[in-house]
Amino acid sequence: MCRGGNVTGNVAESVSGPVGRRIQVTIKDIAKLCGVSVSTVSRVINDRPDVSPEVRAAVLEAVRSSNYVPNNSARVLGSSSSDAIGLVVRGLANPFYSPIIKVIGNRIDAAGYTMVMQQISSTEDEIQCGAIMEREKKLRGIVFLGGRSDYSEEELGTITVPFVCCSYDNSFGSLPCGRLSAVSIDDCATAYRAVSELIALGHRRIAALVAATDDRSISELRYRGYLSALRDHGIEPDGDLVACTGSFGMDEAYIATRALASGGADFTAMFIIADAMAIAAIKALEDAGRDVPRDCSVIAVDGLLLSQYTRPTLTTMCQPSEQMGEESVRILLDMIERRSGNRSLVLESTLRAGASVAPASAWK
Amino acid sequence: MCRGGNVTGNVAESVSGPVGRRIQVTIKDIAKLCGVSVSTVSRVINDRPDVSPEVRAAVLEAVRSSNYVPNNSARVLGSSSSDAIGLVVRGLANPFYSPIIKVIGNRIDAAGYTMVMQQISSTEDEIQCGAIMEREKKLRGIVFLGGRSDYSEEELGTITVPFVCCSYDNSFGSLPCGRLSAVSIDDCATAYRAVSELIALGHRRIAALVAATDDRSISELRYRGYLSALRDHGIEPDGDLVACTGSFGMDEAYIATRALASGGADFTAMFIIADAMAIAAIKALEDAGRDVPRDCSVIAVDGLLLSQYTRPTLTTMCQPSEQMGEESVRILLDMIERRSGNRSLVLESTLRAGASVAPASAWK
Repeated sequence: MCRGGNVTGNVAESVSGPVGRRIQVTIKDIAKLCGVSVSTVSRVINDRPDVSPEVRAAVLEAVRSSNYVPNNSARVLGSSSSDAIGLVVRGLANPFYSPIIKVIGNRIDAAGYTMVMQQISSTEDEIQCGAIMEREKKLRGIVFLGGRSDYSEEELGTITVPFVCCSYDNSFGSLPCGRLSAVSIDDCATAYRAVSELIALGHRRIAALVAATDDRSISELRYRGYLSALRDHGIEPDGDLVACTGSFGMDEAYIATRALASGGADFTAMFIIADAMAIAAIKALEDAGRDVPRDCSVIAVDGLLLSQYTRPTLTTMCQPSEQMGEESVRILLDMIERRSGNRSLVLESTLRAGASVAPASAWK
Repeated sequence: MCRGGNVTGNVAESVSGPVGRRIQVTIKDIAKLCGVSVSTVSRVINDRPDVSPEVRAAVLEAVRSSNYVPNNSARVLGSSSSDAIGLVVRGLANPFYSPIIKVIGNRIDAAGYTMVMQQISSTEDEIQCGAIMEREKKLRGIVFLGGRSDYSEEELGTITVPFVCCSYDNSFGSLPCGRLSAVSIDDCATAYRAVSELIALGHRRIAALVAATDDRSISELRYRGYLSALRDHGIEPDGDLVACTGSFGMDEAYIATRALASGGADFTAMFIIADAMAIAAIKALEDAGRDVPRDCSVIAVDGLLLSQYTRPTLTTMCQPSEQMGEESVRILLDMIERRSGNRSLVLESTLRAGASVAPASAWK
């Protein structure tokens, strides 16, 4: 849970509150109070140009009177001697993140910085968390590990240090090119390739297990890849074959797949947006009396080490997770140390054949 | 990788080094230089009593002249306004740690502190890492997640802030009672119970898969529990049935189990010290032509969520991982905020029945 975040309340409400609890006033509260934009407040706080003396004075007064980041005001307005880089992890339970967190931690450390990590659930807002952390921890930069893909210019105004989106991009956002740094695979194309593999093996009734079809994030991107692959191969998508879990959790994946299979849905293959979900789904299929891959092929996206040891081993599109972490830190440090501006990288995913996929006709 | 740690080199070597790189002088270097103990140096640095003025002056001069923690000397000798709590994770790849890290992060955050995490491999020394972090990051306290169980008083002198050992204790150490805080299960008793379950089902040829039999840590503790259970039931341990992997990794577990099974060793059950290792071992057994549980029962320790979805589901001794994280932070905060001194907690492990264990005679 990210501390603070009383974004919509007014300043008076935010500052009061139960005795002894720190309620954070956010940059949005300050902007509202002064009748200026969030980025203007950022400029004042970070002592940047292009703000009139009147506005600057008003914002600084509001910062002081509202107790904005009350315990760290010296840090916010002081010199920038911090060596802290923030890592905001959205949904830590995802085992895909473990090797990335390790690489990011090691690279930040090797470069002489300190990694400060916060973990939030997938229903919390990473940008808001990052903005609070930036001020409270006096960050030099931020890596967001997992997040939405629909940022707007206004939202990003709350972040005034360099940041990199790791494992996702801004496909649904409205930002101009070069406004953001991201390191990810092409999620839509990766899903397209996975589903095309199933189609090439003769499957036409292909179910999909996703977190959501409209989350403006990687689940929606991978769902779109699934739809495109079907349509490009002349297969009309069937909404009855799409199960939504609401999360990347194994329990939810098991329940949704069990319901799909027990409901008698007619499919010979499943595309699943994450390895961990696929492992639970395979158990659900077996528990519903469907053998994998004899009765149902399963293909996923992630490429966990673990998936090489589950039975059957999982056929999956591997993301280059360590490279993703490395490149994210490299880009961030280049920005912090002013060697370059925003950069985005799209890394290759590769098919790792397991034993969870078979031709549609193999046992027919 | 934990930065610094040039413990054995002399101060001159440590301070020089490639231009532009920070080489850390450690507290041990200072102690050596001054001909005093590490804890004396700690006392001086932390401005504590019971040090003669002469020694104090000599140590402070050595600290200054050697550039000890060169970029943070103000922090080391300054006031204690930091809100940082360190989390040293030894072997992050262990999926057992994920829910614990999450809980620890959330609890530290909720209490108004900042979690600073470092990850080290299982061959690195967590106490040395913690001592460097304590000074560089000006920590208020430390949670060690995973570590050795044989600390000595001298080693611990390098840590001058409160700390808690999470998921392990100090069974092999020489410390007086109350010198250390730890939250763990009883690893020996937990292994004993797991092996006793197998024996109760008629198994007598029981193999063990461990990281090491003599690592002065949880692998050795669990191995001892295995030996005791066999002996208490009149079964003579057979060294040929013990496979050591050198780590908690899945790849290593697969290779060791495959070698054991392919070598024709005669056993009807396996005790495995960790769930992730057991998942890989089950694959190795199957690949060697031994069905689980028909030809070989498998029981493990950890109780990962994941192990409920692998096939067969794993029978395992569950550690209360979230409670372990919660209690560790609770004890640490009590010490930091001076509500109590060192405390140790031994939590209960509980058997979770899966489908990986069957009576010895079931298919005979």
